[in-house]
Amino acid sequence: MRYLHTMVRISDVDASLRFYCDLLGLKEVRRSDRPEHGYMLIFVAADENPDSQIELTYNYDPEEYTGGRNFGHLAFNVKDIYATCQRLQDGGVTINRPPRDGRMAFVRSPDGISIELLQDGEALAPAEPWASMENTGSW
Amino acid sequence: MRYLHTMVRISDVDASLRFYCDLLGLKEVRRSDRPEHGYMLIFVAADENPDSQIELTYNYDPEEYTGGRNFGHLAFNVKDIYATCQRLQDGGVTINRPPRDGRMAFVRSPDGISIELLQDGEALAPAEPWASMENTGSW
Repeated sequence: MRYLHTMVRISDVDASLRFYCDLLGLKEVRRSDRPEHGYMLIFVAADENPDSQIELTYNYDPEEYTGGRNFGHLAFNVKDIYATCQRLQDGGVTINRPPRDGRMAFVRSPDGISIELLQDGEALAPAEPWASMENTGSW
Repeated sequence: MRYLHTMVRISDVDASLRFYCDLLGLKEVRRSDRPEHGYMLIFVAADENPDSQIELTYNYDPEEYTGGRNFGHLAFNVKDIYATCQRLQDGGVTINRPPRDGRMAFVRSPDGISIELLQDGEALAPAEPWASMENTGSW
């Protein structure tokens, strides 16, 4: 048995690729665009385990997607949590739970999918602006 | 960067371990029980890629967890989709989308998390009772 992917729905392809790829750092690995069937699937993944994917489903008749409580979040290990959070923040993403401890942060995708970022290996030394940044919203 | 896990919330530990492990076939890989903090985390994974995990979060003050549309499903590759569906069905799980094509099935966890099962490699030859089984509900 093998884990393949977690599917999440997206309401805006450009905004989602900007978030998941340009800002978060995942790579697009394959795409299946079937407008005649009303959907486009974009599979993205982290470079270290590209076979464990996130399937982004875009429906050509999109809804405004909201969340439920049975799903929690997606979690990724990153090499430098401060650099990742800086890139996300510079791109306009709210750092809902800043990495005050040099170890853990939470952000949300444009469609409200909660994303946990965990520092690879040992926690980084506390550093500003993160160390004194308050939480924003929920995650 | 590395994918770590997808977190889902569970309202019943026994029912969830029965579903995810005994019936679906994942293995428990670690557990962090912190009743003093109000939660227990159980990480489960498929045998072929045990580092790509599902984090089951049990809160000692549980809610009834319902779903939202931004999350879609978790997908796993299985060696024999008919055997997996038979085990799930014998365990009382509704096969929402039976593997009529010998290739794909959907079920739901006790908390409504949609699970996609995909046959490893080539689709199996159509076979009963699956080939003529109707869909049930949504997935």
